[in-house]
Amino acid sequence: MTNIILRGCNGKMGQVITQMVEEDENTVIVAGIDLSANRMNKYPVYHSFFQCNVKADVIIDFSSPKNIGEMLEFAMQKRIGIVLCTTGFSKEDLEMIDRASTVIPILRSANMSMGINLILKLVQEAAILLSEAGFDIEIVEKHHNKKLDAPSGTALALADAMNEVLNNEYGYKYDRSLDRKEREKKQIGISAVRGGTIVGEHEVIFAGTDEVIEIKHTAYSKAIFAKGAVQAAKFLPGKTAGMYQMSDVIG
Amino acid sequence: MTNIILRGCNGKMGQVITQMVEEDENTVIVAGIDLSANRMNKYPVYHSFFQCNVKADVIIDFSSPKNIGEMLEFAMQKRIGIVLCTTGFSKEDLEMIDRASTVIPILRSANMSMGINLILKLVQEAAILLSEAGFDIEIVEKHHNKKLDAPSGTALALADAMNEVLNNEYGYKYDRSLDRKEREKKQIGISAVRGGTIVGEHEVIFAGTDEVIEIKHTAYSKAIFAKGAVQAAKFLPGKTAGMYQMSDVIG
Amino acid sequence: MTNIILRGCNGKMGQVITQMVEEDENTVIVAGIDLSANRMNKYPVYHSFFQCNVKADVIIDFSSPKNIGEMLEFAMQKRIGIVLCTTGFSKEDLEMIDRASTVIPILRSANMSMGINLILKLVQEAAILLSEAGFDIEIVEKHHNKKLDAPSGTALALADAMNEVLNNEYGYKYDRSLDRKEREKKQIGISAVRGGTIVGEHEVIFAGTDEVIEIKHTAYSKAIFAKGAVQAAKFLPGKTAGMYQMSDVIG
Amino acid sequence: MTNIILRGCNGKMGQVITQMVEEDENTVIVAGIDLSANRMNKYPVYHSFFQCNVKADVIIDFSSPKNIGEMLEFAMQKRIGIVLCTTGFSKEDLEMIDRASTVIPILRSANMSMGINLILKLVQEAAILLSEAGFDIEIVEKHHNKKLDAPSGTALALADAMNEVLNNEYGYKYDRSLDRKEREKKQIGISAVRGGTIVGEHEVIFAGTDEVIEIKHTAYSKAIFAKGAVQAAKFLPGKTAGMYQMSDVIG
Repeated sequence: MTNIILRGCNGKMGQVITQMVEEDENTVIVAGIDLSANRMNKYPVYHSFFQCNVKADVIIDFSSPKNIGEMLEFAMQKRIGIVLCTTGFSKEDLEMIDRASTVIPILRSANMSMGINLILKLVQEAAILLSEAGFDIEIVEKHHNKKLDAPSGTALALADAMNEVLNNEYGYKYDRSLDRKEREKKQIGISAVRGGTIVGEHEVIFAGTDEVIEIKHTAYSKAIFAKGAVQAAKFLPGKTAGMYQMSDVIG
Repeated sequence: MTNIILRGCNGKMGQVITQMVEEDENTVIVAGIDLSANRMNKYPVYHSFFQCNVKADVIIDFSSPKNIGEMLEFAMQKRIGIVLCTTGFSKEDLEMIDRASTVIPILRSANMSMGINLILKLVQEAAILLSEAGFDIEIVEKHHNKKLDAPSGTALALADAMNEVLNNEYGYKYDRSLDRKEREKKQIGISAVRGGTIVGEHEVIFAGTDEVIEIKHTAYSKAIFAKGAVQAAKFLPGKTAGMYQMSDVIG
Repeated sequence: MTNIILRGCNGKMGQVITQMVEEDENTVIVAGIDLSANRMNKYPVYHSFFQCNVKADVIIDFSSPKNIGEMLEFAMQKRIGIVLCTTGFSKEDLEMIDRASTVIPILRSANMSMGINLILKLVQEAAILLSEAGFDIEIVEKHHNKKLDAPSGTALALADAMNEVLNNEYGYKYDRSLDRKEREKKQIGISAVRGGTIVGEHEVIFAGTDEVIEIKHTAYSKAIFAKGAVQAAKFLPGKTAGMYQMSDVIG
Repeated sequence: MTNIILRGCNGKMGQVITQMVEEDENTVIVAGIDLSANRMNKYPVYHSFFQCNVKADVIIDFSSPKNIGEMLEFAMQKRIGIVLCTTGFSKEDLEMIDRASTVIPILRSANMSMGINLILKLVQEAAILLSEAGFDIEIVEKHHNKKLDAPSGTALALADAMNEVLNNEYGYKYDRSLDRKEREKKQIGISAVRGGTIVGEHEVIFAGTDEVIEIKHTAYSKAIFAKGAVQAAKFLPGKTAGMYQMSDVIG
């Protein structure tokens, strides 16, 4: 049984995780941390880690960078790991996280879904082989019409993952409407489609001479991100100090 | 039997049409017009319409805007129609074409394939209904890595066709990477993917609340454009003077 | 304001409709009918229409064929229409419904989503034109791994809609693994993919010489069926007696 | 420079390879073997290996199992490898090939395209991880309406590749229209779509809870099979005796 402290338990993702853990017989939430107290939960909820003295195996954090110091302090003191799903950290935050990772295991990922983390690996393999064979690489991502940024962080993570194994020689191309020339070879085109309530679709296209390979991930709900977090929470206890990624979890 | 004069007979598309007509028992090429004489054809080939005195029912033009005047002259004199598949006309050319169409029937289309011309109609119907119901409209097109322009003329034709039935209230959006805001309602996003030898793929996406409709056309070879031209050549003889489109042919 | 009586209000779809109506300022649920009383609703819930004397403009029925007689009786007496989303009616039920439709307007559809009802029309148009041009027609549908029947009722409705405009000359083909022969012309192949929690995807494929047209609908949640029902509920009041379909609503 | 003897040089695939080699500066065809002499080639063509005494580095065979004995004899005598793209071998043929592979290197693959051979590896990786996580596996393949067999050999090769890493515990399901039950877990559904002139499309679908991963290969012409054969021909010279696969070539 994995005992979890859930930071951000009363937020949208926090509630999705709460329900998921309830249906999983190998995990239990033993405490929540949240500034707001707007929900009834089956576990005690504290405003701050300072008030919390519950014994746990791991922390899942789906909140905001604010007050991250006290969480790191708590975790280091208790020698328990953190699954860090919060985004938007400052440079100082990231340095603090790095220092903490010399004492405890910390897992941090741009996208917690198992599917995305699998295709991050598959597109790397494909990129090595196919770029050498002259294939062009393109990414098309689709999200709902409320999304502010484009392209998505996950699309960029896919591009970066491929670029990493291609000696970082590729540039990213977001708009071709202003050019009037042939496609450059060392280029990854990234297109962002926005519409309706699309949860998230990422497609990596390898186009060669008379053949095309596509690797595509479609998310149907936010639950897949919660699932990945819970999986990571089961993985982390007992690991040595250091930084981990979802790719370590899914092997 | 439809007797065809083929302008641009020794070009790439000219040869595709030559072969297609050979296999079609209801059409025959009675003469070709081409500045280059690099091919052996089963029909006589002339440098210019001035040298050609062959009797025909229709002209198919798959060449360049250059010397278009002499073709229009010839056609008006002989009272035969023209299937105009050439692109890149100047404003003066277009006016000349318009004037000629008061004497003879002229069919001109951005894309000769039957499939594209069908979906031009379908996306209009869908756009009327779905835009009112709050769906967002996006287009993704994919072409080979040698294509110079982006988005494709056909993608723009699809957008224009929809915009026409939406009171031309929609703007086109080619790049979202510089914004950081929600999608605007009266917008058609158009993304251009380039890679390998992709002949041509056009997808119109209607994204609403929890449902998405996609209408997609995939071309596997240039033969489909030749096919449309031959179909149009059979359609045109006997029609009254005026401008026609492929949508008139496919009913 | 459209006043709705919701039969089957405490079922899964009933609750989705309840929430949707709550967020819609032009409709209100004035009473529910349900055999089970396991939920708290903001409107009164009755076991049977016999106990209900609430004034309403229309009934939405998302329950079971059981006791359909009392609903029809109630609606005819009050002269209000019914949006019939229940399926699995017996022949006797259907006759009873037909008789009631001489007195009141009744709308009945295999799939209430606006998207599916739109593509039912689009595929008919495409089928008429493309079958004549020699294109082959295929359908691929995808649903979750709990679905009992295959192919889906909606896939069959799509096939039937096309067959109707093709003089019902086409047969349906579910399995090709036992043959060893070329595809027959007057055939619609229907493939059923089952996996995970896929809500519902329907794709109609028109494959011709070197070009393919695809018309596809993807459902992301059951809410789209509720939405169609509410739309129909707004449409029905004031209509003359008779049988209606979603295609009447979406124009 | 790789010197190639091309068996089946006057067949459809033989001519595609002839043209491809002509455009490749690192390979040359030094002789052809073919029973028919219906074509003009730039290299000498012999009816049989018995008449051919040309020095070569490798043989590409795209013909028929007939007279395979004399090719194996020739290759063993000259100590050169064979790229075996012919299919339909009898058990006796296969034993003969196995014996020859103790003397010379022989490469044999169900599908020569680099793309298919890559995704054969990717789907294995995905299958190991995702089947354990409860994802369902399905394959949809699409081919032209003249294809006799269904599902395609490549679809079966994809299923077999996945089944191999899943302890061969999965059964294949071609038709669900006769059942009325939930999908079985240890099952790979395989659907065959037939229409038009589709060259070949293979899609492997991994469907889990609220997420779907698709790995898809689209062939636009038969040239990709020729390309793989030429690539293999460059790979084989100098290799030790034994049986090889395209996966050895693409690393």
